[in-house]
Amino acid sequence: MNQTEATASTLFDRTLAGLKGAVRGLIGGDILDPDPDLKKGDAERIRERLWACLEGTGGEVSARNRAADLGKAYLQLSQTGRRRYLTILATEFDRDPAAVEQAAAALAAAPPEDRAAAEDALRDALSAPRERLLRQFNTLADGVKFLVDLRYDLMRFAREDVALSGLEKDLKRLLASWFDVGFLELRRIDWNAPASLLEKLIDYEAVHAIQSWQDLKNRLDSDRRCYAFFHPSMPDEPLIFVEVALEAGLADSVHALLDEESPVGDPSRADTAVFYSISNAQRGLAGIAFGDFLIKRVVDDLRAELPNLKTFATLSPIPGFSRWLENNPDEAVETALAKPGWWEDPETAEAAKGPVLRAVARYLVHARRRGRAADPVAHFHLSNGARMERLNWLANVSEAGRAQSAGVMINYLYRSDMIEANHEAYKGEGRIAMSSAVRALAGKRENKTR
Amino acid sequence: MNQTEATASTLFDRTLAGLKGAVRGLIGGDILDPDPDLKKGDAERIRERLWACLEGTGGEVSARNRAADLGKAYLQLSQTGRRRYLTILATEFDRDPAAVEQAAAALAAAPPEDRAAAEDALRDALSAPRERLLRQFNTLADGVKFLVDLRYDLMRFAREDVALSGLEKDLKRLLASWFDVGFLELRRIDWNAPASLLEKLIDYEAVHAIQSWQDLKNRLDSDRRCYAFFHPSMPDEPLIFVEVALEAGLADSVHALLDEESPVGDPSRADTAVFYSISNAQRGLAGIAFGDFLIKRVVDDLRAELPNLKTFATLSPIPGFSRWLENNPDEAVETALAKPGWWEDPETAEAAKGPVLRAVARYLVHARRRGRAADPVAHFHLSNGARMERLNWLANVSEAGRAQSAGVMINYLYRSDMIEANHEAYKGEGRIAMSSAVRALAGKRENKTR
Amino acid sequence: MNQTEATASTLFDRTLAGLKGAVRGLIGGDILDPDPDLKKGDAERIRERLWACLEGTGGEVSARNRAADLGKAYLQLSQTGRRRYLTILATEFDRDPAAVEQAAAALAAAPPEDRAAAEDALRDALSAPRERLLRQFNTLADGVKFLVDLRYDLMRFAREDVALSGLEKDLKRLLASWFDVGFLELRRIDWNAPASLLEKLIDYEAVHAIQSWQDLKNRLDSDRRCYAFFHPSMPDEPLIFVEVALEAGLADSVHALLDEESPVGDPSRADTAVFYSISNAQRGLAGIAFGDFLIKRVVDDLRAELPNLKTFATLSPIPGFSRWLENNPDEAVETALAKPGWWEDPETAEAAKGPVLRAVARYLVHARRRGRAADPVAHFHLSNGARMERLNWLANVSEAGRAQSAGVMINYLYRSDMIEANHEAYKGEGRIAMSSAVRALAGKRENKTR
Amino acid sequence: MNQTEATASTLFDRTLAGLKGAVRGLIGGDILDPDPDLKKGDAERIRERLWACLEGTGGEVSARNRAADLGKAYLQLSQTGRRRYLTILATEFDRDPAAVEQAAAALAAAPPEDRAAAEDALRDALSAPRERLLRQFNTLADGVKFLVDLRYDLMRFAREDVALSGLEKDLKRLLASWFDVGFLELRRIDWNAPASLLEKLIDYEAVHAIQSWQDLKNRLDSDRRCYAFFHPSMPDEPLIFVEVALEAGLADSVHALLDEESPVGDPSRADTAVFYSISNAQRGLAGIAFGDFLIKRVVDDLRAELPNLKTFATLSPIPGFSRWLENNPDEAVETALAKPGWWEDPETAEAAKGPVLRAVARYLVHARRRGRAADPVAHFHLSNGARMERLNWLANVSEAGRAQSAGVMINYLYRSDMIEANHEAYKGEGRIAMSSAVRALAGKRENKTR
Repeated sequence: MNQTEATASTLFDRTLAGLKGAVRGLIGGDILDPDPDLKKGDAERIRERLWACLEGTGGEVSARNRAADLGKAYLQLSQTGRRRYLTILATEFDRDPAAVEQAAAALAAAPPEDRAAAEDALRDALSAPRERLLRQFNTLADGVKFLVDLRYDLMRFAREDVALSGLEKDLKRLLASWFDVGFLELRRIDWNAPASLLEKLIDYEAVHAIQSWQDLKNRLDSDRRCYAFFHPSMPDEPLIFVEVALEAGLADSVHALLDEESPVGDPSRADTAVFYSISNAQRGLAGIAFGDFLIKRVVDDLRAELPNLKTFATLSPIPGFSRWLENNPDEAVETALAKPGWWEDPETAEAAKGPVLRAVARYLVHARRRGRAADPVAHFHLSNGARMERLNWLANVSEAGRAQSAGVMINYLYRSDMIEANHEAYKGEGRIAMSSAVRALAGKRENKTR
Repeated sequence: MNQTEATASTLFDRTLAGLKGAVRGLIGGDILDPDPDLKKGDAERIRERLWACLEGTGGEVSARNRAADLGKAYLQLSQTGRRRYLTILATEFDRDPAAVEQAAAALAAAPPEDRAAAEDALRDALSAPRERLLRQFNTLADGVKFLVDLRYDLMRFAREDVALSGLEKDLKRLLASWFDVGFLELRRIDWNAPASLLEKLIDYEAVHAIQSWQDLKNRLDSDRRCYAFFHPSMPDEPLIFVEVALEAGLADSVHALLDEESPVGDPSRADTAVFYSISNAQRGLAGIAFGDFLIKRVVDDLRAELPNLKTFATLSPIPGFSRWLENNPDEAVETALAKPGWWEDPETAEAAKGPVLRAVARYLVHARRRGRAADPVAHFHLSNGARMERLNWLANVSEAGRAQSAGVMINYLYRSDMIEANHEAYKGEGRIAMSSAVRALAGKRENKTR
Repeated sequence: MNQTEATASTLFDRTLAGLKGAVRGLIGGDILDPDPDLKKGDAERIRERLWACLEGTGGEVSARNRAADLGKAYLQLSQTGRRRYLTILATEFDRDPAAVEQAAAALAAAPPEDRAAAEDALRDALSAPRERLLRQFNTLADGVKFLVDLRYDLMRFAREDVALSGLEKDLKRLLASWFDVGFLELRRIDWNAPASLLEKLIDYEAVHAIQSWQDLKNRLDSDRRCYAFFHPSMPDEPLIFVEVALEAGLADSVHALLDEESPVGDPSRADTAVFYSISNAQRGLAGIAFGDFLIKRVVDDLRAELPNLKTFATLSPIPGFSRWLENNPDEAVETALAKPGWWEDPETAEAAKGPVLRAVARYLVHARRRGRAADPVAHFHLSNGARMERLNWLANVSEAGRAQSAGVMINYLYRSDMIEANHEAYKGEGRIAMSSAVRALAGKRENKTR
Repeated sequence: MNQTEATASTLFDRTLAGLKGAVRGLIGGDILDPDPDLKKGDAERIRERLWACLEGTGGEVSARNRAADLGKAYLQLSQTGRRRYLTILATEFDRDPAAVEQAAAALAAAPPEDRAAAEDALRDALSAPRERLLRQFNTLADGVKFLVDLRYDLMRFAREDVALSGLEKDLKRLLASWFDVGFLELRRIDWNAPASLLEKLIDYEAVHAIQSWQDLKNRLDSDRRCYAFFHPSMPDEPLIFVEVALEAGLADSVHALLDEESPVGDPSRADTAVFYSISNAQRGLAGIAFGDFLIKRVVDDLRAELPNLKTFATLSPIPGFSRWLENNPDEAVETALAKPGWWEDPETAEAAKGPVLRAVARYLVHARRRGRAADPVAHFHLSNGARMERLNWLANVSEAGRAQSAGVMINYLYRSDMIEANHEAYKGEGRIAMSSAVRALAGKRENKTR
């Protein structure tokens, strides 16, 4: 958390530095330089400026420049100041209920030939003025990144302050429109990438933390691939990235994959691409999905580059198993895992293997939440049309790996000829595609799992 | 016209060529290859595919790939086929009136705490399914350009077929969001630009036609500047561009500006930047304005590069004068211009000068349409905060120049310290900023001009 | 000629413009601004500066800056001034005969262990001081281009003034070292290339003049290829370029190749690459050969891009035929070509075909100069290992084509499995590789051809 | 050393990897794949191939391809194999003494009009065939880097084997021609540079070792500058680089400069640029100087970017002091430095300051070797026209800093108005420019220092 907060604030600082001089020449009047906590008078000045922006006083260009100045002011505020600022934006620039009501009445009374116009008018009334203001912040030098980070602020504030959630939704809608996958650019990242970008991978990696620049270099070697989506307005910021190992056969352990001492393979001879880490890099884009597209674009790209690749699969964590186990106790598993160092002693580990793998398989296959697989990673890959292929014992025995899922990991398999059918079966009936091995481990569904 | 149509169709052909291979691997089923006129069965196939896209059968990625295929099919159609296609999209994927009514009723009945959600639901009901489909075409290799050109088709078809105007408005709204000025990139274009881009300037120039590559080269010489806005998703397509001459003093004739034999000036000594041509390059973006931003960004850029520049002004056509004159006859003017070759013989020209300039000034200053200046170019610059500075006699005596405005042109002056005030006065009260010379020529408003 | 001179001087002017401000801050004293004809006092100032450069007064950086200034001064001179300037450089900075003699004597007397050092010393004595000066001009902003153009000046002057030929040779040696093929970059040029570069192709094309930008665009279409070599220090200047048509079978007429109306072929289906024009672009690099490398690099590149290509051949002019015919009269040929419009009337043309083709074949195969093929284009391709494949009747009936070789052109064939053997046979014994058809036409060698 | 060897061999391995597939299609015969130690038969094969290259069998392109293959073979050899290989090249492709003698005799007998030709012929005879072979290795994919690394091999081997020194000199001459400063490109390096390049800075830094990526990032922060020279044929390899700190006033301690915790300054307010590290990156370019040019180009660049900079100076080590002190013992200094931890205890340090600074000043100013300053860093800066400005006590108390010069460092000052005069005085009379403070410390020259 602290790490995250630190990162986020560093990013803001960077953006702020980038803003020096961004507020261009034509602004009349004073530059805003408010008190960090946005004390009374300053809140009043912000309010006035927001109105001036909205009304376009002095023309559209001037309004935009004012918005840039308002955005810059926001970045200088404390958390308290920002919350006050956003509250002004959320409450005073909300939809006008009377206008909505009036437009709805007009629509109800409209003759057929005026109906379309009345619908448009109602729709306009339902679009809050704050939406227009949000859009204008885009004129900042790093305007899109500003809005993405602003949404992250809003998401946190809105958890405690429901008055902000409408504004948060407006911003999400705007960002979803701008981050349409058609606009995203897929880039391969290797050791020739800018250090400033690679540093961000180190910051943002969410699955298997990158320990050092040497660790990172190893992950970008010639038998590895790393791809990320970028947006043209944030060319230095990855949105989401995936790390891939080119292997002979399915990988069964993350330790082998990340071992800096292991020899570098010849990518042209690999037959399997293992997606072993996918990380979202922008918290402010939460809920705007492009992971599905990323995987499929990368598969296309790899297939074109390396025709020998036949199998595309993941080596994935099972983040929800341990929590599920607490609610669905299993004596055999608990006994097995209670032995200190169970994963280090071959005999003890061997004894634990059967019960644990069966429990994990039961969790993955039978645990549901609203008809969907309860495990979030499972749900993501199943929705994309993958199937559960193989459970791997002692695949990640780091402290985190043991805590999450007793060191077990799973391979999800992407077969292009089955993706559509798998997707439809899962989406429609909640039917999960799986190998016979996984099916055998999971057994029949016995009891209601939560 | 023919030229334009030809250009447009060439552009489509180019896009089509670019599409080869754009429809990526994961599509199931046959590739669409419809009859050009979209005869019955083919229309049915299109309809089915559109529904499949909308419902996301096979997952979001598959839906997108289907949309790309649908877009490709569109490009292969004749004008008849396209109109049929768009009619399906417009009418069968329109808003559902019943759903709108129901959502409106739910909002009317909603308790305060559910109001925001009910408003959101109504807004969703007011968003037609075809909007989602339009957005998905963005997955085409040149998806944004495709949609821009699609809108140009729609605008033409909608003139005769009101059923298409709702779809056209939806598309305009979508494009306006994507072409937010914050996303546009200002680029200077010179003789080192790709020939394929320069060729487009020759095609798109709308004010003073470019006669040859030599003429173009002259306009890109070291004492000239050309700037354009680009969108990151259409990197090879200018959206709007402006041509600027760096001069000593205000230019008074377009002939001098475009004379290929005139010596090249030293830009570092120029004190005046004359904007002598602004052309919109994308017909499909009509009504989505960025000319205002372009001028001001260019002024900033020039000021930074050439600190000696003190004056920023245009040399502009007066496109509406002659038509106005027909409705507001003026005997002195008519007599003067009736003489054959009036512009060539110094004496005759001198005799015509007074009456014509006064008539032009009256037109520019007093002719109004809904409170705004009737002349469209005047309205554009006045809205941006410019003022009418000087009328120029014999400034463009080409056939086109004489036909439009008896060879007269005008300088609009952009002074940064007056832009906001001019804009406000014009926008609020319709007050036009002008020099005393123009005021003297225009005289008082005498009669109602249409 | 005039055209060429004009081009050369334009290029100099461009370079001169580029030099503004190139002379950097650390130079002491006045900037040189000599009289164009380099009258007496100015010649003296140049002489002094050259000596100062050579002696490195003020350090190596200062000497370089002085050289840049001296280079700039050169560009401002008239032809007379330049010749005087170069004469100073050639005669006053020549080798010192006494020093050479002394070093040679020292070498003769050197004991074995000092021999290597004595050889080095003699070699240094044989290297004229002007060589070091030439090298220092490289510090100019476009220093390499400056030296290339300087050599062109020198070549012209040296024809009339043998005192300059030593300097010319020194410069050639220097340029040959710098333009080693290992440094050259092969670039494909298409319609997306900068207009300023394409304009140079129009200027430099030496085989089939480019008539217009439309003609050029046609030569860069998708069924054509154009490649050039560039040097990293002259990134905007092609050194040599080749134009290739992708065809089905050997091309037999340049008119078909250059016809702007002919349909665009599908390059992926072509089986033959026809090299129909190779032009050296830098006169100052005459005698420094890279045409051979260009062809072979382009063959490699095309083969990788288009695996369907099986045949690589030229469609080449025969520039020396008509002159040879004057010295080796042939009544049948003369009679046939004496008929006005012989190439237009099918019957007359058919009658001329036999005698003319036989005479051309005799010329190509039997006419020799110092054991080599007398035709310069033939010599170039034979040296590269190509073979004479086919003569083409009415292949170029433009005025130039008729004047050179009665409209006949020839295909030289490059077959990778025969290149080495062909090259060796031609280089060693002067044996010419040819198809049986060409052999049949040429017949046995009858008479001594000059 | 080990580190260096490791680096060098890693670089070779990289180059080797880059060579895969570089040997292009047209080579006839087998690819060389010799025994690492180049046992007898393989040495014979190499010898034959070298001769084939030289004679251009099969044409110039084939010869080049053979050379590329020969270069690739070299990279696969052990140290023993390489030495054998180079010995073949050095001894069997050396100048022919008989030919030299004959050419010298011909020159002696030449009449005046044939003299120039005879001189040229003698010069050719003095150019060994191996020079031409070296040049041909340039066709390798990374040919220039190959030759640079080859020279490093040669320099090491030649130390023990004088037979190789002629070849080494030939290669040096060739590289000096190719690495003419006119060809070098100055690039600023910051945190956005490729990680693969920054990693090389870490490897190559020779003055103050870079401890970590964080240390490097700190040296590339906004109040720092790093510049390097690059050659277009080795775009990923810095040749020499300099690190600069932008400060208020002269820096007096390297610890403050490298402190990662110190706040980032505002570069636009700095008045002094401190060059605190200059490292040559290519051992194979030893003796080919461009440090002087680098400093002056960087000064120009900084002056243009930051007009507030008034002072350009170094903070430099004094590498030769301790060795000098051994030969020129000074009791006071020895006593002072004999106290353990003398640099940590303020009182002891203060007591040592006077004697040590005086001794250092004496060394710098009076110790000479062949009339030049004995200290190599001093000689470098004095040759460039800098002056000795200030000695700094406790400026580098790292173990290395104490070992070299008792922790003392010196500022050399670059004043553009004095550079030429300083350079001339030093070069001519050996007169050293210095501040009065340094002069006072150094005192008069008392005794002969070696």
